[in-house]
Order: sequence, then structure tokens, then C-alpha cells
Amino acid sequence: MADILHKVGIKSSVNEVYKALTTRDGLAGWWTENTEGESKVGATLTFRFFNADGTELGSMAMKVLALHRAERVLWECVDGPAEWIGSRIVFDLKQDGDWCTVLFKHEGWKEPVEFMHHCSTKWAIFLMSLKSLVETGKGAPSPHDVKIDNWN
Amino acid sequence: MADILHKVGIKSSVNEVYKALTTRDGLAGWWTENTEGESKVGATLTFRFFNADGTELGSMAMKVLALHRAERVLWECVDGPAEWIGSRIVFDLKQDGDWCTVLFKHEGWKEPVEFMHHCSTKWAIFLMSLKSLVETGKGAPSPHDVKIDNWN
Repeated sequence: MADILHKVGIKSSVNEVYKALTTRDGLAGWWTENTEGESKVGATLTFRFFNADGTELGSMAMKVLALHRAERVLWECVDGPAEWIGSRIVFDLKQDGDWCTVLFKHEGWKEPVEFMHHCSTKWAIFLMSLKSLVETGKGAPSPHDVKIDNWN
Repeated sequence: MADILHKVGIKSSVNEVYKALTTRDGLAGWWTENTEGESKVGATLTFRFFNADGTELGSMAMKVLALHRAERVLWECVDGPAEWIGSRIVFDLKQDGDWCTVLFKHEGWKEPVEFMHHCSTKWAIFLMSLKSLVETGKGAPSPHDVKIDNWN
């Protein structure tokens, strides 16, 4: 098993970051504009990704496993790319003075395949989009996301 | 043991990317302006990182273990942060039509500490700087690098 790890520091309260991780508008503001569902424990959120020309790149369904206000968000992937199904995504938040530290983990990859390399870099891009959304009010969610290669 | 993985696609030949990974000017153009040493097998490269105000953030010394022209660059960290010493950094290149795919690995972390989260995100930022350098002629090496938190 292998994990993707990341960290960003966001000049904000943990509450603002938590809101961006647990509301449809928040998630649509940094990950993908095509976010559906409700962020509550036991519910499923669906995220669809498109190119600027409208072609669909893929989608993921995430079951919300845990929500600890201003501290932790935990999802399990229940549909999407084969490598993602059963993996878990965790956002841990802590306040550090004027900053909110976000420790991110996408855990439970069975093999360190090339797609895992891709997703690792892409998660960094999206976490920087989260940072930008909370700090400036404007993120870069799909389909406006920063591209890392000739596919996505 | 845990590894940091990343991937970027660069619209370029593998030769151009290899040059950016194996010359002092190339390395200074995307990782840190303060790059010293010679990129040859057995030699050591030293990379020092500064804030915009001139305070030093840290430095790393990398022994060049292998250079396979236009295919692979392999370093071992021989000095720097305790967590880095003995870890290895690998860049694998392959041509995919008009694009060069870079598979990156920073392998051999003993523990998935918070600093590993930080370095994972920061490597993504620097690999995007490498992409920018090769595609546009201008990267964002330290001290002009994109900051991910209140420290670096």
C-alpha cells in the first residue's frame, strides 16, 4: 500500500477551510465545478472532471465517512478509476496562529503506478487551488485547473 | 519506507529536459538559483535555498549516482535535512510524441512525517517550474519559488 501526502498552509481560520471542504459551493470552488451531492456522513459526493472543450475526463464518487468540525474530513472512494476505489482521502486541519495547516493524505493505493504519480502532482495543484480560493476568493477548479501534462 | 511520486508532461524533447536536470544552469533555472557543483557521476551537487529577504531556509548535497542520457538521473542525498540523508531522487524521462513525460520519485523516507507532506507538495511546485523553464525559458527557482505555506 502507498499513500500520497501533501501539505499546504492557508492564511485563514480552520473554519473557513473546513467550509471549503464540506459545502457543495466550497468544493466546486477549488476541485471541480461539477460537484454534486451533500456533505454529510454516510452521503455520497460526486465529482466530474471536464476539459475546457467539454469532453469528460472522469468522475469519482466519494462516500463521506467522517466530518469533525474544523478538524478532519474523511472520504472513501466508492466509484471512479479502478485504482481509486476503496482508497481514502483525509484532510486534517490545525490552526497555527493566523494560518490553517492542511495535512492531506490519499491513502491505500495498491501499487505505485504511473497514474498514482499523476494524481499526486494533480492533488498538489488542486490543494494550491483550495489555498487560493480561501485566501483570495478565487480557486482554479476543473475545467479551469492548471494542466500538468498533455492529458490533464 | 515511503516515497514521494510525481509526474509532469513537458512539451519538449527528452534531450531538453535532460539538459535542465544535468547542467548547473538548467538546475539553477528551476530548482534553486544557488546551485553549485558539476553534474557528473560520483560528483556532488549542492543546492541552497533562500527566502526573498535573503535568509537561508536550508541546503542539500546530492551525490550523482547515475546519468543515463535522456533517460534517467539518479541522486543520493548525502547532506541536508536529517530526513533526506540517504534518500534518493530519480527522474525518469520518456518521449511520448511531442511530449516528454517525467516520472519523479523521492524514495526512502523512513517515516511519513509532516515534513514529508511539505516536501511532496513543494516537489510538485518545482516540477511545474521545470516544465515552465523548458516550455517557456523561464522557471521559478528559489528564491522566486511559489510558496505553499507560511514557511516555504
